[in-house]
Amino acid sequence: MSKAKRVVVALGGNALEEKSLPPTAASQLEVVSKTVEYLAELSVRGYELAVVHGNGPQVGRIVLASEAAAEVTPAMPFDVCGAMSQGYIGYHIQQALRLALHKRGKSTPVVAVVTQVVVDKNDPAFQKPTKPIGPFYTEEVAKKLEAEKGYAVKEDAGRGWRRVVASPMPKRIVELSAVKELFDTTIVITVGGGGIPVIEKEDGALEGVAAVIDKDLAAEKLSEDINADILMILTEVEKVSLNFKKPDQKDLGHITVAEAERYIEEGHFAPGSMLPKIQAAVKFAKANPGKQAIITSLYKAVEAVEGNAGTVITM
Amino acid sequence: MSKAKRVVVALGGNALEEKSLPPTAASQLEVVSKTVEYLAELSVRGYELAVVHGNGPQVGRIVLASEAAAEVTPAMPFDVCGAMSQGYIGYHIQQALRLALHKRGKSTPVVAVVTQVVVDKNDPAFQKPTKPIGPFYTEEVAKKLEAEKGYAVKEDAGRGWRRVVASPMPKRIVELSAVKELFDTTIVITVGGGGIPVIEKEDGALEGVAAVIDKDLAAEKLSEDINADILMILTEVEKVSLNFKKPDQKDLGHITVAEAERYIEEGHFAPGSMLPKIQAAVKFAKANPGKQAIITSLYKAVEAVEGNAGTVITM
Repeated sequence: MSKAKRVVVALGGNALEEKSLPPTAASQLEVVSKTVEYLAELSVRGYELAVVHGNGPQVGRIVLASEAAAEVTPAMPFDVCGAMSQGYIGYHIQQALRLALHKRGKSTPVVAVVTQVVVDKNDPAFQKPTKPIGPFYTEEVAKKLEAEKGYAVKEDAGRGWRRVVASPMPKRIVELSAVKELFDTTIVITVGGGGIPVIEKEDGALEGVAAVIDKDLAAEKLSEDINADILMILTEVEKVSLNFKKPDQKDLGHITVAEAERYIEEGHFAPGSMLPKIQAAVKFAKANPGKQAIITSLYKAVEAVEGNAGTVITM
Repeated sequence: MSKAKRVVVALGGNALEEKSLPPTAASQLEVVSKTVEYLAELSVRGYELAVVHGNGPQVGRIVLASEAAAEVTPAMPFDVCGAMSQGYIGYHIQQALRLALHKRGKSTPVVAVVTQVVVDKNDPAFQKPTKPIGPFYTEEVAKKLEAEKGYAVKEDAGRGWRRVVASPMPKRIVELSAVKELFDTTIVITVGGGGIPVIEKEDGALEGVAAVIDKDLAAEKLSEDINADILMILTEVEKVSLNFKKPDQKDLGHITVAEAERYIEEGHFAPGSMLPKIQAAVKFAKANPGKQAIITSLYKAVEAVEGNAGTVITM
């Protein structure tokens, strides 16, 4: 196989935060500064990168701050909080990655673009919202928000009530043409947090909705749209495993789409954790015969892209 | 003079907010939706646009919310709040402007890029911070913040104490190459709020600082850097005036840099209001003989760019 060049990297939560550190901006910048070393290495080796990041904890805290301060200044809707998180995280990645490249004698530009992603308002996910966002409420307050603001609310594992939103499929990246324009010369940070979810109205207007698009699925969409050679999903583990954390755990090196689909059916992968990553990887590999999806850890990203680590999924 | 094509538009505060409306995201989107009609008209007439916006009230409220919620989740530093405001405002402008173009049968892409601007850490402005930001404090709290966090604080017109930050000159737009790459095909929203101010360290690292770069001066820098034909600064009034609001007020049509400099010396323009706009306009016209700076209202933007309204400043 010839050396692949265009790589979409989807960063997992541990690329932005470490649980041992307080959830401050300074900590995020510290963690991001380590993360971008791996991205810079990929860039130095000639790979063209687009970077997708999650935003779960960050947008959660923005919502939290916004609601806690609602007596002082109006709370922001969820789509705006998502846009704010793209600014926050994008800023740190572009600042830190620029330095990591600079230290390697490279001046490849890095830029974060505010990115909307269209979702289908008839997506079945809107019928059963599952993603908890924002603060915990008492049942009384939760029910009040349900009645007054139309929030879907749900009791969350005995810890209190929370707002839940849908996690619809990404249908279209609104700012795709700008991303394409930049991709050849610039490391683009885009569809942060899966993108700001918007629905399309009959008059062509886009309208922000309270929803969370899975960032790995958004990265998959991006990979197809910009004709990437590799979709690389970075997470906590070096390889995908069967019988994860059981005595007969088996780490997977190279698997086919057919094998991956069988393992999914056999229930090997945890929903909300490894399952959506495998699904995104399978979707990409299936739609792009000859190309590959890789699931590995941040620390193995460079080895994996060279074919020496991680789980590779191909048609 | 041949028809100018490349226009940097600097939007004033009234392009994002109306004082009669509550400072909510919904209100901002409503106001922005009106604002972008004028930008769409410019685009339809063949002008290539880059859009710069202020962020004073918005970043002020983000800081306010962040500090008010500090017991719930750590407060964000000022540079991060600026990045968040670029996400927030950029998202609204790109969403609304896309629709305004769509209604006119145009599909010109619109995208906001997170933008850092380098300032000189030896800029004299850092010696006397003047820009109040964030909440009002009691003198006691203000003095405590001064001692503990090194904030500069100042009594603000009898209303309480506030943190004040410097307003240094923009030296370099970090993401300039991406902006240039996009400019020919895409309406780029950039240096929002004057850009996220960063200083350059000896190792080449950029570091965010608590400062506010004047957005008109940032727009001027951008105009020079992308070789714009027109720098258009939009504000509340259609024309710049001498003896503003006095019986002998005289509105200015076309003035030269020399005339503008004389009027500045004569003290016609209010510091913190019209003065920085004139200064930015003069800077651009002086550095670019044959090109023009225009100061006018949003509502006259289209007429002004065709030479039929506003105050035009040329060499």
